Amino acid sequence: MSQKLNFVVLLGSLRKASLNRMLAETLPRIAPEGIQISLLGSVGAFPLYDQDLQDQEMPRPVLEMADQIRSADGVIIVTPEYNYSVPGVLKNALDWLSRVTPQPLARKPLAIQTVSPGMIGGARAQYHLRQILVFLDACVLNRPEVMIGQAATKFDTERRELTDQGTRDFLVRQINALAELARIMS
Amino acid sequence: MSQKLNFVVLLGSLRKASLNRMLAETLPRIAPEGIQISLLGSVGAFPLYDQDLQDQEMPRPVLEMADQIRSADGVIIVTPEYNYSVPGVLKNALDWLSRVTPQPLARKPLAIQTVSPGMIGGARAQYHLRQILVFLDACVLNRPEVMIGQAATKFDTERRELTDQGTRDFLVRQINALAELARIMS
Amino acid sequence: MSQKLNFVVLLGSLRKASLNRMLAETLPRIAPEGIQISLLGSVGAFPLYDQDLQDQEMPRPVLEMADQIRSADGVIIVTPEYNYSVPGVLKNALDWLSRVTPQPLARKPLAIQTVSPGMIGGARAQYHLRQILVFLDACVLNRPEVMIGQAATKFDTERRELTDQGTRDFLVRQINALAELARIMS
Amino acid sequence: MSQKLNFVVLLGSLRKASLNRMLAETLPRIAPEGIQISLLGSVGAFPLYDQDLQDQEMPRPVLEMADQIRSADGVIIVTPEYNYSVPGVLKNALDWLSRVTPQPLARKPLAIQTVSPGMIGGARAQYHLRQILVFLDACVLNRPEVMIGQAATKFDTERRELTDQGTRDFLVRQINALAELARIMS
Repeated sequence: MSQKLNFVVLLGSLRKASLNRMLAETLPRIAPEGIQISLLGSVGAFPLYDQDLQDQEMPRPVLEMADQIRSADGVIIVTPEYNYSVPGVLKNALDWLSRVTPQPLARKPLAIQTVSPGMIGGARAQYHLRQILVFLDACVLNRPEVMIGQAATKFDTERRELTDQGTRDFLVRQINALAELARIMS
Repeated sequence: MSQKLNFVVLLGSLRKASLNRMLAETLPRIAPEGIQISLLGSVGAFPLYDQDLQDQEMPRPVLEMADQIRSADGVIIVTPEYNYSVPGVLKNALDWLSRVTPQPLARKPLAIQTVSPGMIGGARAQYHLRQILVFLDACVLNRPEVMIGQAATKFDTERRELTDQGTRDFLVRQINALAELARIMS
Repeated sequence: MSQKLNFVVLLGSLRKASLNRMLAETLPRIAPEGIQISLLGSVGAFPLYDQDLQDQEMPRPVLEMADQIRSADGVIIVTPEYNYSVPGVLKNALDWLSRVTPQPLARKPLAIQTVSPGMIGGARAQYHLRQILVFLDACVLNRPEVMIGQAATKFDTERRELTDQGTRDFLVRQINALAELARIMS
Repeated sequence: MSQKLNFVVLLGSLRKASLNRMLAETLPRIAPEGIQISLLGSVGAFPLYDQDLQDQEMPRPVLEMADQIRSADGVIIVTPEYNYSVPGVLKNALDWLSRVTPQPLARKPLAIQTVSPGMIGGARAQYHLRQILVFLDACVLNRPEVMIGQAATKFDTERRELTDQGTRDFLVRQINALAELARIMS
């Protein structure tokens, strides 16, 4: 029998009413049997990256998030696309995390999910993120890719939940694929 | 006779001893006749991008930098590469600037310079930055591309200056090419 | 009064029933007053790039296409996306053209159009193509970007024409933007 | 005791005197104990990709290479960078291979090596190739990345061999990392 898996969600948006946040909050509720999903703290708690700051002391929220990632079996990054790339706030978080030793994303199974109002669903951010994650040596899942376009119709913003059933099923497929990858890598 | 041109420098690093900062500080000193180069304020003065903050009030440092960019004839972005991409702090600044109306980088002549300790000189950050700048509709100079690798040997860190003569000449070539582009676009 | 402009279309697909080919064939019919659009020869006439071949003799179809591009006021690349990037046949054509002196795409105003059956409309191919065109020093139009997704519904495959009126209007906007760029650059 | 591994090399250049070809020919000679490395046939045997051709009959060299890849434990792509991206001839080969069922690169452990005369060592081609390989669902090794810049000094062109010892050692490290990945995936 396979062991219970623990996945953590890194969210790339600070806005309260963000659809990406609602997606992140949906994930724990749809986690398949044997998989627990929880949200990491906010990347809004990190200062702007500055090596001079780092040389004084690594900020506590960075160290805490690094610990949570290291003890997880996998990471799900949920993020909007800003200006055809990764949001600065998410990249800033990755810049900080990359400086912690041991680097928490190294060899970590990882899946990407993007939500956007347009048709393209955040694809441009995903491939930039993948290039960043080559350097960070994460084990990024190839398939299925989750890019949720035309997002406005797929959420119940009152209940703060992704409600479109086809999308929910697709998310579960990705979570199961990440679980398979995590079991291979462990 | 052509008019004097005014270029501003956007720096993607916060560290005091950053070689990219030294490069940025070198540019005003090597500006060719008829071109004035000055540094924009620090991207460290911007908060982490959050649309909820923006909805309250656009931060003053964002508005000030947007004004300075709009009144300039061209922009030079000087930045390190972090984790195979654009530093989070620089992307965060671009995310804020992109939300100002009129958007300051639209149709703005723009050149990119990267400095890195390794051989590749920041190339990976440059192409991500170019993709971002497609969305921002900047007029990005194709050539010459300035990627300063093996940078440790090319700076006098006491005088905080890029001293390698070949590199200085190359920088002047790029500044002149940006001036040519600015004159075509005006 | 501004001079008549002459644009040429480079097609990245060899398939006879290709929707991209139908788009390319539609462009001359919708060209605005004062702009003539014609198709270049097929990239299928080029051999696979091999420097040993080039050292013997530059293939005649390569030289002919290079001449046509050089005498044009602008280039429109119309291409499918294959495997998240530029089709090999198109890249092969660009590899050959890049070796002709003077290099025909240098400083040439250029617009990109992609057609794909899916939602993303070929976006992934477009940004790879843009990176290639930095090296080739083309003046690539930023906006509007033409990515025609869910393409099956937008063409009359009997008449071999793009018939969706909204898309036709959008194409005209891009052609006019390319004309503006061509006039600035000339 | 672990089983012998069989890796195949896909070469992205047709030129006889190509340094990339010499690198590919060096690999079988430096293969560590327990790993056999052999070269695939030339991508020059493939026609330009055309779905009309495919619909008639999949070309025999494509099917043969697909078989060789499927029966291998891993693939090493050795390629130059042309015009800031993957050579057209290599992309054309991947476009053909992608249409074979079952698709031969799916879940295949894969490493990338680039050789170039400049400083950047082909990095720009590598990240384009990685994006292509996401679609093809290959398991691409993150580290170490092999980008051999300033290549002229590192080869004995008489013996057609990469002779620089530091680079040879580095190649062996990558081959061993690919072997580790292949063993995890099997």
